[in-house]
Amino acid sequence: MSDDTPTFVRRRLPLVEPPAELIRIPLQHKIDTKTKPPGSLGLLEPLALKLGMIQQTLEPTCEQPTIIVFAGDHGLVKAGVSPYPQEVTAQMVANFLAGGAAINVFAGLHDVALQIVDAGVANPIPGDVRPIEAKVGPGTANMLESCALLEHQVDQCLGTGANLVNGLAEAGTNVVGFGEMGIGNTSAAAAITHLMTGIALDDCVGRGTGLDDAGLAAKRDVLGQVITRARSVLPDDSTQAPHGVLREVGGFEIAMMTGAMLQAAERKMCILVDGFIATAALLVARRIAPDIMHYCVFSHQSGEQGHTRVLQHLGEKPLLNLNMRLGEGTGAALAVPLVRAAIAFLNDMASFESAGVSDRNES
Amino acid sequence: MSDDTPTFVRRRLPLVEPPAELIRIPLQHKIDTKTKPPGSLGLLEPLALKLGMIQQTLEPTCEQPTIIVFAGDHGLVKAGVSPYPQEVTAQMVANFLAGGAAINVFAGLHDVALQIVDAGVANPIPGDVRPIEAKVGPGTANMLESCALLEHQVDQCLGTGANLVNGLAEAGTNVVGFGEMGIGNTSAAAAITHLMTGIALDDCVGRGTGLDDAGLAAKRDVLGQVITRARSVLPDDSTQAPHGVLREVGGFEIAMMTGAMLQAAERKMCILVDGFIATAALLVARRIAPDIMHYCVFSHQSGEQGHTRVLQHLGEKPLLNLNMRLGEGTGAALAVPLVRAAIAFLNDMASFESAGVSDRNES
Repeated sequence: MSDDTPTFVRRRLPLVEPPAELIRIPLQHKIDTKTKPPGSLGLLEPLALKLGMIQQTLEPTCEQPTIIVFAGDHGLVKAGVSPYPQEVTAQMVANFLAGGAAINVFAGLHDVALQIVDAGVANPIPGDVRPIEAKVGPGTANMLESCALLEHQVDQCLGTGANLVNGLAEAGTNVVGFGEMGIGNTSAAAAITHLMTGIALDDCVGRGTGLDDAGLAAKRDVLGQVITRARSVLPDDSTQAPHGVLREVGGFEIAMMTGAMLQAAERKMCILVDGFIATAALLVARRIAPDIMHYCVFSHQSGEQGHTRVLQHLGEKPLLNLNMRLGEGTGAALAVPLVRAAIAFLNDMASFESAGVSDRNES
Repeated sequence: MSDDTPTFVRRRLPLVEPPAELIRIPLQHKIDTKTKPPGSLGLLEPLALKLGMIQQTLEPTCEQPTIIVFAGDHGLVKAGVSPYPQEVTAQMVANFLAGGAAINVFAGLHDVALQIVDAGVANPIPGDVRPIEAKVGPGTANMLESCALLEHQVDQCLGTGANLVNGLAEAGTNVVGFGEMGIGNTSAAAAITHLMTGIALDDCVGRGTGLDDAGLAAKRDVLGQVITRARSVLPDDSTQAPHGVLREVGGFEIAMMTGAMLQAAERKMCILVDGFIATAALLVARRIAPDIMHYCVFSHQSGEQGHTRVLQHLGEKPLLNLNMRLGEGTGAALAVPLVRAAIAFLNDMASFESAGVSDRNES
């Protein structure tokens, strides 16, 4: 580990509080008196309400929106759960740093800042531009054989994620999204989702970057074995063991995202929850601090099959449903214009009174 | 009619041609070699393909995207089909001109130009700022009693819409959306949708700006009478009578939108199709020139119930599904960042080769 590694902070109980309720009624009133039929801005109306509640203001803002992309490798790839070789993780990190990936393009288009974090990439990252160095190890252990992370690695990841978000909060960011890169990480996310929710494992396992039918069957078989091993060491009710689940079947990038999300909620930032992997990280964070949900905006419903199922479980409908399944935080980046639209209608639209528009007939 | 009224052009057979196919394969190849699993950008991939096909280039652009909002009143409102009074049409046009409506806020946020057109508003428009003057009449006739538009009014609307789009095309716009304002126009759109598709009338009729159950039942009853009258003068197969349907149950703003859409396709522009009203205008345009569909991007699935049904009929899935039901072109404005995202990934993402990223294992 280099000297640049952010200071490790062990804090298992973040202080996530729900937003104070007092402002809800004036916020809703402001929304309802805009020059439009009530409810006619659809999902943008509860989004505006949520942003006002989070920021405790009638005039919320979207300041320096930032996406942190965590990259890490997975020992499980030795079992053949992805059609891409492990080197792609390092190569894609280099692509992020060179500005050539989808997340670069979307973030650049929408004035979203990017931070690229090496949470635990196995291979050397090509090129001169360096990521934020927070490497916990050269990929996780193979979760078929042992826990994926050691106990202290889980804590290190949670602390590093928290520290990175603290840096953003101090620089003034109030909207943050999290992306990831890691060949094999839909497998870890599927295992986490199953263990944290009880959703049937087969419903949590999808094609990832593009497995064929035989590949999908093999991935299900491997993950069945992983779950059998993990359950042998986890409490009977695994949904109550967030740290244990991260240890047994997590990933460095996923655990770091969990820590970052918890800290973002503690700092009262709006959290853009990307796709399947990010939702898995959130399932863990939510068990640690249930009030985190007040700070979460679900940005995109992934094409990865497990995501639809877990969103049903959570009762959430994301802003976008573009059938993307790329990760990197791409769904979060594409949702930023909608966050800005919700803020803009709340702040800038005329009211019936100010515009001299007749409200509906009272009958 | 003032001297500023665009010249009326009667042309019943627009020259809408499908994009040449030759560029499809190189475009798809360019999409498939970007640094992402094939298909992982979901709906943005066919969108990029469509834009490249429309513009016949591997490097499409989004130049001066513009939304034209057509406003017009409806004689049918005398029958009580909306909870809002007719004066709201004129008041909302004034709100558009003053910059206070949702469409102003969203267009401003996303650098989309706006044009506000008086296609046939019944009441005086308050304020000093004037819309583009193209008033065909002070609202349509009551379609319970007679045709809504006279034959020559249909042609005037089609010609005016075409002229406005020609102006944009000559100024360099290559992406155009159309919005509308008109108390009562979900009724006209429902009647058009029924007559142009054969979808059951009750499935086409929704709550509009917010009718309660009794209001919805009354609207269905009124529209049932409208359809009986219209069918008595239309050919047996009304789906083959686009001009007749506009005449019997159309609106000035809807017919103008039909003409604008046809001209946009003839000028090889990308057409952002907004919600229920815009789709009704397109149903007519599509019967006149079926190849218009190659130029259409469906931007938002409206909360108005008939829209879901007609999108199924067309086999289209819009980019956004935010449950909005406001009209004004708001769905089109919010889709512009996704159009830009599709263009940006196609033009700016690295390829596997250029980024030195390994493609999937060949097995």
